[in-house]
Amino acid sequence: MKNIFGNSLTMTIFGESHGPAVGCVLDGLTPGIAVDEEEIRKALERRRPDPKLDTARVEPDHFEILSGVFAGNTTGTPLTIVIRNEDARSRDYVYGPARPSHADYTGFLKYHGYEDYRGGGHFSGRVTAAVAAAGGILLPALRALGITVGTHIKECGTVTDRAFRGPEDVELLLERHFPVLSPEAGQKMEEEIRNAKAAGDSIGGITETAVFGLPGGLGEPFFDSVEGLLSHAAFSLGGVKGVSFGEGFGFSALRGSEANDALRLMDGKVITKTNRNGGINGGITNGMPVLMNCAVKPTPSIATAQETVDFVRMEETETSVQGRHDPAIVRRICPVLSGMTALVIADLLIMRYGEDVLAKGIRA
Amino acid sequence: MKNIFGNSLTMTIFGESHGPAVGCVLDGLTPGIAVDEEEIRKALERRRPDPKLDTARVEPDHFEILSGVFAGNTTGTPLTIVIRNEDARSRDYVYGPARPSHADYTGFLKYHGYEDYRGGGHFSGRVTAAVAAAGGILLPALRALGITVGTHIKECGTVTDRAFRGPEDVELLLERHFPVLSPEAGQKMEEEIRNAKAAGDSIGGITETAVFGLPGGLGEPFFDSVEGLLSHAAFSLGGVKGVSFGEGFGFSALRGSEANDALRLMDGKVITKTNRNGGINGGITNGMPVLMNCAVKPTPSIATAQETVDFVRMEETETSVQGRHDPAIVRRICPVLSGMTALVIADLLIMRYGEDVLAKGIRA
Amino acid sequence: MKNIFGNSLTMTIFGESHGPAVGCVLDGLTPGIAVDEEEIRKALERRRPDPKLDTARVEPDHFEILSGVFAGNTTGTPLTIVIRNEDARSRDYVYGPARPSHADYTGFLKYHGYEDYRGGGHFSGRVTAAVAAAGGILLPALRALGITVGTHIKECGTVTDRAFRGPEDVELLLERHFPVLSPEAGQKMEEEIRNAKAAGDSIGGITETAVFGLPGGLGEPFFDSVEGLLSHAAFSLGGVKGVSFGEGFGFSALRGSEANDALRLMDGKVITKTNRNGGINGGITNGMPVLMNCAVKPTPSIATAQETVDFVRMEETETSVQGRHDPAIVRRICPVLSGMTALVIADLLIMRYGEDVLAKGIRA
Amino acid sequence: MKNIFGNSLTMTIFGESHGPAVGCVLDGLTPGIAVDEEEIRKALERRRPDPKLDTARVEPDHFEILSGVFAGNTTGTPLTIVIRNEDARSRDYVYGPARPSHADYTGFLKYHGYEDYRGGGHFSGRVTAAVAAAGGILLPALRALGITVGTHIKECGTVTDRAFRGPEDVELLLERHFPVLSPEAGQKMEEEIRNAKAAGDSIGGITETAVFGLPGGLGEPFFDSVEGLLSHAAFSLGGVKGVSFGEGFGFSALRGSEANDALRLMDGKVITKTNRNGGINGGITNGMPVLMNCAVKPTPSIATAQETVDFVRMEETETSVQGRHDPAIVRRICPVLSGMTALVIADLLIMRYGEDVLAKGIRA
Repeated sequence: MKNIFGNSLTMTIFGESHGPAVGCVLDGLTPGIAVDEEEIRKALERRRPDPKLDTARVEPDHFEILSGVFAGNTTGTPLTIVIRNEDARSRDYVYGPARPSHADYTGFLKYHGYEDYRGGGHFSGRVTAAVAAAGGILLPALRALGITVGTHIKECGTVTDRAFRGPEDVELLLERHFPVLSPEAGQKMEEEIRNAKAAGDSIGGITETAVFGLPGGLGEPFFDSVEGLLSHAAFSLGGVKGVSFGEGFGFSALRGSEANDALRLMDGKVITKTNRNGGINGGITNGMPVLMNCAVKPTPSIATAQETVDFVRMEETETSVQGRHDPAIVRRICPVLSGMTALVIADLLIMRYGEDVLAKGIRA
Repeated sequence: MKNIFGNSLTMTIFGESHGPAVGCVLDGLTPGIAVDEEEIRKALERRRPDPKLDTARVEPDHFEILSGVFAGNTTGTPLTIVIRNEDARSRDYVYGPARPSHADYTGFLKYHGYEDYRGGGHFSGRVTAAVAAAGGILLPALRALGITVGTHIKECGTVTDRAFRGPEDVELLLERHFPVLSPEAGQKMEEEIRNAKAAGDSIGGITETAVFGLPGGLGEPFFDSVEGLLSHAAFSLGGVKGVSFGEGFGFSALRGSEANDALRLMDGKVITKTNRNGGINGGITNGMPVLMNCAVKPTPSIATAQETVDFVRMEETETSVQGRHDPAIVRRICPVLSGMTALVIADLLIMRYGEDVLAKGIRA
Repeated sequence: MKNIFGNSLTMTIFGESHGPAVGCVLDGLTPGIAVDEEEIRKALERRRPDPKLDTARVEPDHFEILSGVFAGNTTGTPLTIVIRNEDARSRDYVYGPARPSHADYTGFLKYHGYEDYRGGGHFSGRVTAAVAAAGGILLPALRALGITVGTHIKECGTVTDRAFRGPEDVELLLERHFPVLSPEAGQKMEEEIRNAKAAGDSIGGITETAVFGLPGGLGEPFFDSVEGLLSHAAFSLGGVKGVSFGEGFGFSALRGSEANDALRLMDGKVITKTNRNGGINGGITNGMPVLMNCAVKPTPSIATAQETVDFVRMEETETSVQGRHDPAIVRRICPVLSGMTALVIADLLIMRYGEDVLAKGIRA
Repeated sequence: MKNIFGNSLTMTIFGESHGPAVGCVLDGLTPGIAVDEEEIRKALERRRPDPKLDTARVEPDHFEILSGVFAGNTTGTPLTIVIRNEDARSRDYVYGPARPSHADYTGFLKYHGYEDYRGGGHFSGRVTAAVAAAGGILLPALRALGITVGTHIKECGTVTDRAFRGPEDVELLLERHFPVLSPEAGQKMEEEIRNAKAAGDSIGGITETAVFGLPGGLGEPFFDSVEGLLSHAAFSLGGVKGVSFGEGFGFSALRGSEANDALRLMDGKVITKTNRNGGINGGITNGMPVLMNCAVKPTPSIATAQETVDFVRMEETETSVQGRHDPAIVRRICPVLSGMTALVIADLLIMRYGEDVLAKGIRA
């Protein structure tokens, strides 16, 4: 479905970096969800560049809800959010020389020169503002059901954050300007980012998203496994190049006796003693926290000169990216991944429990 | 879509491990594709257990094409392949005590006790025989267009195979009984697998899938990125817990100046000097080989006793898995991942170039 | 989705008239629905030719459930039904001269000569046996929720059946060999059909499908209106050329004051005094019976000589259809339309109330 | 997909009658289609009320393209059109007493009182402005390929327009203020509409949509028949209660020998002598004009007092509709049906010939 994702709840995303606006349509939302514009504002703020760390393009992110909300609640009909582009500087962009590891050349292959190349157009991270904004509606709705979703930077350069301990860590992240659980790790990461920036370079990282309070039994045994749906959503982001659950690539070195999660009873509920499977078995949630990791590549835009090709003139050339960019997108991607995860979770709940579940709660 | 995947070309999968059959329906296939039953047989054989390494359940995998093929060619209407279950030993399975890291408990949560629990039912790796069989039709069809898809074991336990060099490696794999590029690495992996088996244990690994000869410009900039589609498909397999492209999780430690793929011209074509992005930028193929890694967890079924819960009686208990299982699914998963990848690639080609592309070829 | 239909509950249909089998996969069915093979047998029987009226091809319709049923109940995983073709006489069919108003020529345009032309291939009414069989599972499941679906011949040639009065008429139809409410009308229709047959001709008709006991609030306000979904499904049948709801085309001659359905209270429930809208307003059910009419064209296969084109040789020619055909498909289409309607209704219920609704019942 | 429709080309629709705006997102459009804002303006104008005939609410229909167009051409990324609501008079609407045959009560059943009831909210014909606007892009794109789509009022009250003769009639309609082929019929229809209005009443009708110049071979043999897709789209409109193709319900009274379309050769092309099947056989276009009829019910809003129920207080009451409404929606629905048809046709072409077809043309 190209720029549409979801089953019973779908998101249609649109917009170009330097066009009039970016936005999205949420279709299939339960009626009667309270929409707090302040939550949307905060979600957008979490995604906004940090002037000390990031791009000099700081958008005010004024949003407007065009449909689907009435008297402060969702109506159940398509909800459209539009965020105007206001601080676009199109003169920074030239058409022809491909920025390495960017989508300039692939955009040309797909759209034959008709793509809006300014600022990456529809490929720009700018469109993810719409996902963050949607998160400002979906995340509080899930929270009201006891389901909390959060994302922190697990690794950035050589620094590692501590792991999630429980839902209280999600609350903690809401207060953090820099999305890490350990403030010390955060300071070191910020330093590495500043160093990279000073060197005209950029830096990658790994994020961890956790979902606490999710009921077991969500997802499908084959194609629409929870892993399949979440990874499909996460890989929408051009910077994400790997997605794993629980131990992920670490499973390779383990034996079954080390890797398996033993089951036990706790307070009359089935739990697992460890959670190496990241809360999912056979594609279906088991009631333990869902844990997803995303590998985020370093921002391709760097000031250093790079070899490239001008695909219009078909000649080799050099480029050094002059636009305004982040030395590390891993920070700004966190609220987007939380929004994306909320979308998948909300869809799974609606499919399983029916279209009113987000307002009426789960009745097993 | 639960057990259906794809856009213009879809696969609907069905079957339980100990039911009458497993199979799939391919809908949207180009008419006029030659169907060689010998290729299907070989694809199924690649997925069959190796008696020296794997489970004692060796299915003859007799298949029947129920629809969609006439006079040796695809008709363009839904193609149904059915593979009968013949060597099922249901008495090995008891309902209640969950096999750790298996889908027994999540199946119960989702299906409330109505699931066919014998041999894992619809969660069994057995259903992937249908994907391998579909690969026996799709892979030759792609090969006829100059597109080759292959999967090898990149890592198993402590052993690493050499990387893909080019399409000739895909040919090489077709002749290998054990899907590795370096025979020495293969011998060591087989040894590690035998050791794990002898210890009543199992072992994980990492696969690498390559697609050579793919045109640039396939895929979508956001939700239906090539990474999103391939990962969605790969995560259908219960044993896959991580999917990455190119450098994947290795990007975390790199700086942009190290991670970017410089562009150059070669024989009048745009190429990248390195391929750390795995042939995909902004969700769209760039003409370089697509490279996907999958992390495969150790087979959860091990002979060793494990703590678990009997979810029917709701009491803690112990289990040691008595059924017939593989100590490492990483070998048998390779042809399945190739089949899955072929499905996604064929779908992308049909969406871009139209429904006749697989027979008439690509006309840009 | 080509040969797949539905949202939360989907049907994938496959098969050719003279291939090994026809069948379907139902994906998304609630686990725990009792499957009574006798009901499937009866549903197939209702669709079987009447030797006195119809084609001489009488298939025994042996079916096999390949997946998705365990211990007499649906498992919740994909349910596959296969019905073998046994009485196919392929020699009756020649390739090239198009049978007028059949899909011979359009099949050639779409499939370029690779289509299985024998007996109409995938275009044959034979594939609808799979829909009738699915009805044998879905209709009893709906009945257990108090929802009854039935289809009668409303008009055939010059004869008109009486209208539906209530759910008891659905029960009545289950006992009728010829699906009409008034036995006298039935006799006259059978006579008209026999007359057409005797004249080497065929005859059309109009069916009426009713759904009683449906809750209000199902469906969507725009694209997935109940009318849109039901018509989409009904038009799968090559013989259906018109679909309407309530007054349908009769609305054209009415004024609003005559056409509107006044609302009243009855036993504390909102009802409408008339039901000219066929139980649907703004795409959504209002709690009154859903009433759908389908226009069924006369069987295109007639013994009389007709002008046509041989599209292989590209020359004008004559044809008189020799295969075994029904003089009126309107009788045999009734159980198929009921099965199709049951599919749409079951999907709507699952979307609204969640995936367990067909077993656990509706909880508003 | 609720408020989303299409396969390779999709439309997501949004908006409420008295909310900030209505609009739609087109996803999957070929890049390089010229977008002429004047054409969009004209398409919207055709849908605008005629002050002499229709509602007193006359919206200026200012639209804005938020994404997907760059330098006058489609980019290939999602195209969003937004049309502001400016002349909404919400005070005319009271919540509780259901307007008979409107969606007030079904909206309440589905959305539990959270629906934006003002002016019918998302159920309002107002949202179809977005479809008309999309038609302003799609119809010229099809015309450039030699495919013309037009809709006229075939019947209104007791008056009948003459039938379509050929593509020149589509051109003719572009110049007509009142969409009929025979000006005399048009005058009589306008008179009947004025009479109904004067009587505080409303009137129904039948539209006919024709597609000329369509290649054969489009559509699918079963679920995604051309009839299925077109009817699904047409039934999105609350006023449409019947859809038929070619002879439609007239087939009931015909025998096969009268109903079949004989095939002949003309200028080396296969044609049918008559076109009673409306250009579609077995769900697939045969190269003859596609002919679709839609039954449009009388506007439910009438000034006359009607019996109804106040569903909030659950008591019987009376209502006479005070808002501003059309006595006949059949005129304003014509450009919407043409836009809807263009959407389906464009989608079918893209599926068959690939994503660039609308700019590069059809290459068989």
